[in-house]
Amino acid sequence: MNKYVYSFDEGSADLKNLLGGKGSNLAEMTTIGLNVPPGHTVTTEACLKYLDEGRLAEEIKKQMKEYMEKLEDKMGQKFGDPEDPLLVSVRSGAAVSMPGMMDTILNLGLNDKTVKGLIKKTDERFAYDSYRRFINMFGEVVRGIPHRKFEEKMNEVKKKRNADKDVELEAEGMKEVTKKYKNLVGDIPSDPWEQLVEATKAVFASWDNERAIRYRDLNGLPHDMGTAVNVQVMVYGNTGDNSGSGVAFTRNPSTGENKIYGEFLRNAQGEDVVAGIRTPLDISDLKDVWPDIYKELKGVCKTLEDKYKDMQDLEFTIEEGELYILQTRTGKRTPNAAVKIAHDMHQEGIISKEVALLRVDGKQIEKILHKRIDPDADLDKLTKGINASPGAASGKVVFDTDEAEERGNEDESVILIRPETTPEDIHGLAASEGVLTSRGGMTSHAAVVARGMGKPCVAGAEEIEINIEEDYFEVDGEKIEKDDIITIDGTTGNVILGEAPLIEPKFTDEFEKLLRWADSIRKMGVRANADTPEDTKKAIEFGAEGVGLCRTEHMFFEPERLEAMQELIISEDKDERKYALDKLMPMQKDDFKNLFRAIDGKPLIIRLLDPPLHEFAPTEEKRQKELAEKLEVDRKKIKSKVERLEEENPMLGHRGCRLGITFPEIYRMQVRAILEAACDVKEEGQDVSPKIMVPLIGNVRELKNIKKRVIDPVESKVFVDRDKIDYEVGTMIEIPRAAVTADEIAKEAEFFSFGTNDLTQMGLGFSRDDAGTFIPNYIDQGVLEKDPFQVLDQDGIGQLVKIATEKGREEKQDLSVGICGEHGGEPSSVKFCYKTGLDYVSCSPYRVPVARISAAQVVIEEEKEVDEGVDGY
Amino acid sequence: MNKYVYSFDEGSADLKNLLGGKGSNLAEMTTIGLNVPPGHTVTTEACLKYLDEGRLAEEIKKQMKEYMEKLEDKMGQKFGDPEDPLLVSVRSGAAVSMPGMMDTILNLGLNDKTVKGLIKKTDERFAYDSYRRFINMFGEVVRGIPHRKFEEKMNEVKKKRNADKDVELEAEGMKEVTKKYKNLVGDIPSDPWEQLVEATKAVFASWDNERAIRYRDLNGLPHDMGTAVNVQVMVYGNTGDNSGSGVAFTRNPSTGENKIYGEFLRNAQGEDVVAGIRTPLDISDLKDVWPDIYKELKGVCKTLEDKYKDMQDLEFTIEEGELYILQTRTGKRTPNAAVKIAHDMHQEGIISKEVALLRVDGKQIEKILHKRIDPDADLDKLTKGINASPGAASGKVVFDTDEAEERGNEDESVILIRPETTPEDIHGLAASEGVLTSRGGMTSHAAVVARGMGKPCVAGAEEIEINIEEDYFEVDGEKIEKDDIITIDGTTGNVILGEAPLIEPKFTDEFEKLLRWADSIRKMGVRANADTPEDTKKAIEFGAEGVGLCRTEHMFFEPERLEAMQELIISEDKDERKYALDKLMPMQKDDFKNLFRAIDGKPLIIRLLDPPLHEFAPTEEKRQKELAEKLEVDRKKIKSKVERLEEENPMLGHRGCRLGITFPEIYRMQVRAILEAACDVKEEGQDVSPKIMVPLIGNVRELKNIKKRVIDPVESKVFVDRDKIDYEVGTMIEIPRAAVTADEIAKEAEFFSFGTNDLTQMGLGFSRDDAGTFIPNYIDQGVLEKDPFQVLDQDGIGQLVKIATEKGREEKQDLSVGICGEHGGEPSSVKFCYKTGLDYVSCSPYRVPVARISAAQVVIEEEKEVDEGVDGY
Repeated sequence: MNKYVYSFDEGSADLKNLLGGKGSNLAEMTTIGLNVPPGHTVTTEACLKYLDEGRLAEEIKKQMKEYMEKLEDKMGQKFGDPEDPLLVSVRSGAAVSMPGMMDTILNLGLNDKTVKGLIKKTDERFAYDSYRRFINMFGEVVRGIPHRKFEEKMNEVKKKRNADKDVELEAEGMKEVTKKYKNLVGDIPSDPWEQLVEATKAVFASWDNERAIRYRDLNGLPHDMGTAVNVQVMVYGNTGDNSGSGVAFTRNPSTGENKIYGEFLRNAQGEDVVAGIRTPLDISDLKDVWPDIYKELKGVCKTLEDKYKDMQDLEFTIEEGELYILQTRTGKRTPNAAVKIAHDMHQEGIISKEVALLRVDGKQIEKILHKRIDPDADLDKLTKGINASPGAASGKVVFDTDEAEERGNEDESVILIRPETTPEDIHGLAASEGVLTSRGGMTSHAAVVARGMGKPCVAGAEEIEINIEEDYFEVDGEKIEKDDIITIDGTTGNVILGEAPLIEPKFTDEFEKLLRWADSIRKMGVRANADTPEDTKKAIEFGAEGVGLCRTEHMFFEPERLEAMQELIISEDKDERKYALDKLMPMQKDDFKNLFRAIDGKPLIIRLLDPPLHEFAPTEEKRQKELAEKLEVDRKKIKSKVERLEEENPMLGHRGCRLGITFPEIYRMQVRAILEAACDVKEEGQDVSPKIMVPLIGNVRELKNIKKRVIDPVESKVFVDRDKIDYEVGTMIEIPRAAVTADEIAKEAEFFSFGTNDLTQMGLGFSRDDAGTFIPNYIDQGVLEKDPFQVLDQDGIGQLVKIATEKGREEKQDLSVGICGEHGGEPSSVKFCYKTGLDYVSCSPYRVPVARISAAQVVIEEEKEVDEGVDGY
Repeated sequence: MNKYVYSFDEGSADLKNLLGGKGSNLAEMTTIGLNVPPGHTVTTEACLKYLDEGRLAEEIKKQMKEYMEKLEDKMGQKFGDPEDPLLVSVRSGAAVSMPGMMDTILNLGLNDKTVKGLIKKTDERFAYDSYRRFINMFGEVVRGIPHRKFEEKMNEVKKKRNADKDVELEAEGMKEVTKKYKNLVGDIPSDPWEQLVEATKAVFASWDNERAIRYRDLNGLPHDMGTAVNVQVMVYGNTGDNSGSGVAFTRNPSTGENKIYGEFLRNAQGEDVVAGIRTPLDISDLKDVWPDIYKELKGVCKTLEDKYKDMQDLEFTIEEGELYILQTRTGKRTPNAAVKIAHDMHQEGIISKEVALLRVDGKQIEKILHKRIDPDADLDKLTKGINASPGAASGKVVFDTDEAEERGNEDESVILIRPETTPEDIHGLAASEGVLTSRGGMTSHAAVVARGMGKPCVAGAEEIEINIEEDYFEVDGEKIEKDDIITIDGTTGNVILGEAPLIEPKFTDEFEKLLRWADSIRKMGVRANADTPEDTKKAIEFGAEGVGLCRTEHMFFEPERLEAMQELIISEDKDERKYALDKLMPMQKDDFKNLFRAIDGKPLIIRLLDPPLHEFAPTEEKRQKELAEKLEVDRKKIKSKVERLEEENPMLGHRGCRLGITFPEIYRMQVRAILEAACDVKEEGQDVSPKIMVPLIGNVRELKNIKKRVIDPVESKVFVDRDKIDYEVGTMIEIPRAAVTADEIAKEAEFFSFGTNDLTQMGLGFSRDDAGTFIPNYIDQGVLEKDPFQVLDQDGIGQLVKIATEKGREEKQDLSVGICGEHGGEPSSVKFCYKTGLDYVSCSPYRVPVARISAAQVVIEEEKEVDEGVDGY
């Protein structure tokens, strides 16, 4: 006969698949000698048998009964005894915890008779409170009655008895609630054994409910594992002054300090601690109240850390002076605490460097590097948008870009609010504390620029309605006017009214050390996307080993340059274009010189002009007029030219290398500026390592064309009387066609850099500006797991990355391959890049530390040097 | 010692690589006994040796001299003899003819002395005309002097002598021109031998000129073949009344009739026949003039057709009563002639069915099926746009869609002119003879709709400036107002002022027979893209075996439906949407019933709604107002909803299955209409074969979602009390991600249909609406060979098609795979589809015959059953 039930002292962590996560954990704690309330686990095998047969087999019931009898013997109590009833909790516990699974029934064993026994042991109010809770949970879990129906009944009683909160109901009130609940549920068995059988079947059946199935589908979990059921004796912390309940962390989850942290309440149940009705005492006060218990608890913490080798979050109850450990789990912690705990535990010899690195979560790390809102602050939240660039900032609301620039430059704190930003808004954005837009997503213009600048951005806050003309926005009936103060949290997407208290970022010694460990382990390079010397320096400070993407277009937005750029755009022929380019050339050259100086010999990948010309075009009538006057041309000419530049689908339009092919003089100017700048800085005695990147190549002939008509002729002019400088020419791989013909392209390119933003747009057919209308719905419905603009779609776009890398290397074994899309700083995407064989990732400076950690983690994960039992949290 | 020179009677067609195309042809004709003016060929090996060594080797010169001496012996003339000089032509001739290669020098051997001898034989004017031509050609070919310099000199003389045309110059004038040319060229050698050596070297060198190299690059031709040089004795048709020149076709190149066709001139050179100064006689008149020559010529024609097994176009000269054949080549012919000749030659037992099929060019065939402009007409061409839908039409210019509809429906012939069309223009387009747009390309809305309707369309005529408000357009200074008549030629892209004479299309018996031969050979199915019962019937008449794409969106544009659709769009919730859909449902059902009746049991693939909702939205204020009144809602609501629907990149926006996922009720209505219509028609006693196609799938989860939330529930409702009908559910493969994850998608799809229009847009990152700004430039520069929206980009997009087909079949061996993009009717793309293993192609009805022919050709080509020597023309 199969064994379908294990008591906690029979089980162990090895039996996780059979006993589920919770069951094996309880068994483990029991085994290492902690005082866990006794109980047993009905196995996942029993579950599968039940699901298969559609009924609970007699042999399972028999074993369940046997173990209940053992429990009765152990506790000296009887199930259903009206004097001193044995009460148990029933909890589900699959190997992996899963939303949608039926969870917990407490106080099972209560009925109209046994409740009297409980009254004797505690008091009437508590007993009926426990009883009505049992009926509620049984009703929900076993009978599928919606939670709100119970709430309605509760509210009826509270109203009748003038009670605002549940706790204000006295014993009589609770008794009345109990009665109403019983009527609601109807056929609740009074026999505790029947209660247990029904509860067990309900938990088993919930394995196959829709939400659980979908969760497993989404997470690639098998459907044939089943869930276990844990039956555990109830203990009560509210049986008198010699009892109590509490929660404890083995270390401080907020700072990481190695000291027990937590709180407790005398004569109270665990939920009272959490509910916050009575103020709990600090765990250190336990020392004074019950010094022995405190000592014992410290020992338990030590035992648990020794066992689990990680900070634990445990629940305990003291019943009549006896300490019970109800549960332990890996404790959640702040990013800073995560770093400190990982670091300290290695220093203390508990875990290896590798495990320490796995303990920090890339997504969390990013938060360390930005200002954030004090998590304890009370906030007046207005709305939520997309968390497009992390960090938080407060300032006065300003709607006009020029005004934002002016006031920002006078050291006023302003937040720029726009429906969406265009390159013409960059100067205003640069002077603001942050930017809030009502349209666009993670890769909208505002988001990309803000991330590059390390400024917070909340994008696509669709609920707000902006009235630019009258300088206000409305959200949910509230009107926010110019100069009102708001706070935006680009880490969460929250928009808050007023000035929220902010916490400054810290880069602790522990963090520095972890990053150095990561560097010693990782095999993939980390570079940064940086367009200015300031960004470049910041990136190097954060550990970047070069610049993987310098976007030259951002250099054209200072007023003087934008004007020259606009002259260029309205040029009718080559000569006019040349005239405008001659103005731009010295400025570009200066830009590049400063970049070469800032990067100090590390590789600098400069991308030639990428956006369509209409992004620079003067679209407002006023500006067209100004330009017309300044350039002494007919305004109509400007207007007509600007209109002709408009495109139906600009993302698929006349941009990138297509510009370089139709207007080679623009690229020639840029290449000349790069090469001359490199020569100049080299002559200053500094190393330079320039790499010219041609964007939007889809066909090797485009690259050939640019090399032949742009790069080669410029090279031969620049180096005619100067020492030749080594430089490389490579390309973005961002068009699906480029990926599938990468072998051809590799013949002409010395490096590849995946532009996964565009590759995602084209590969998925999602416009990043428009997909916001359906992506949230897709995620809700489980069609997408994640926003593919935030997390690389490994199965689809990743396939293209893989194909291109393989084909490229087939042709050119030592081809340098990297990524410079936004995904280059996203942990799971960084790991994918390593597994796909990329040489480096490049991301915004603030995400460089994230990339360094993630790149180390994937090496560790791959090498399977991870200690057993150290799952992530 | 290598043999570098072959006399014509030594060579043969087998030596094509050594002798070049022209040389081997001359040798071949000589061998089969035709009277070819004698000569010899300097081989391609000599060319390569020259290019390699940078000088003409002595051994080559020696052989050249030897063969010149043989020629002198044969002709009884001497090179440089002032009495009776031997004159020769020198022509290049590579194995493949190539633009940019230096071509011809005539009359080589003339100098100030030998010209006297020529005067004796002919007359002074002719002799100096020949001399100046020699100098001109020598100057251009050997010295690289631009052609216009010679023209300038000629014009000087003509002006001085009051001559309008060259022919008006008398002997003295020609003498003066000769002198001026000599001064222009300068160092022209007088020794004929030196002339020959220099000419040979120049021809050899031209192998490596830039244009020739680029041509070979573009066409994938090897660079190491070299060109040969042909030296041939000059013969003259203008030595008296016993001489003459002419051209002849072995069959009528216009009708295909099996009768010699051509013309000749007595006492004239070949170029006089072509120049049209004197009116040539019909070749049949030769019978009366010189019956023997006529008989001989007929024999030559027969010999040539026997030899080449195709209609030949030959040049001949009669010198002093002797017939010389100067050249023969496969004759160009009209599409109708091509069909007739191919058919007849098979009937005459000259060629096999397979060869007959290879003789018709898919691209030409299309022209048979449409009206076309009489090629002999004098036309006043206004401009040229993109040839977006074939055929020609004349009509009055109309700018307003409603007006076009009204007048068109009253049987007036109108041409609709719009900057671009939207679905709101369909009713006007349907009533017009054709449409002309100033924006958009091959796959613009106007083009797609016009092709579907079989109406001519010239799209993207960028030179015209349309003023919609004032009802006129301007082009090149000319103003065309409403009601002016124009003719558009959608086959060439030409726009013509006035009513051009049109030729009605003919579907000859011969063509029908060829198509039946094609059907017996091809292995791939041919279906049509058709949205209406009329189109469907037309398609079946043209041989379609089903409908591969029925676009349901075109059904929503009739006024009543558009209104319901617009109601749908402005709906704020499910109930409002349902109300609008309930109106549409019976109409859709009726549409489908008529389609099922029209298609008579053949497969009918119906695509669910694809375009974004804003395509149906009322964008004009007037219409918004009307709708607001009609529906009794606030106009602002309509306006705001329409604005919210706008997208930055609609091509990558909220469309296709994305609509079906966010608004499943729309797709449910469509699926219900399809299934109920199928049931109804089945109950009428007719077979039905419905296939539901879900567009824009990028992720298998989308298809799962639609099946689960749309198709399955509708099926279970429809078939609850009706007999179940077999139907299939499949998907478009038009998103790159779908291609690379096709194995996953095949798990849920019963068929794939490649939407290569979208796949091209996304795979290349080209918006079909915008790419017109750079594609022409790309083609000019050789970055692209062809417009990828017209001819499938086999190396890039074709890769995706291949990957998807392989992955799909890996998962599901019997997966039906087809194509329904515009490429499905383009010959080279059809062939690619067959080679990639597709089951069928689907194209607009008018291209179905093209697809049938092409699908047969590729089988024949693959099976290599082609007779040797029968190259295409």
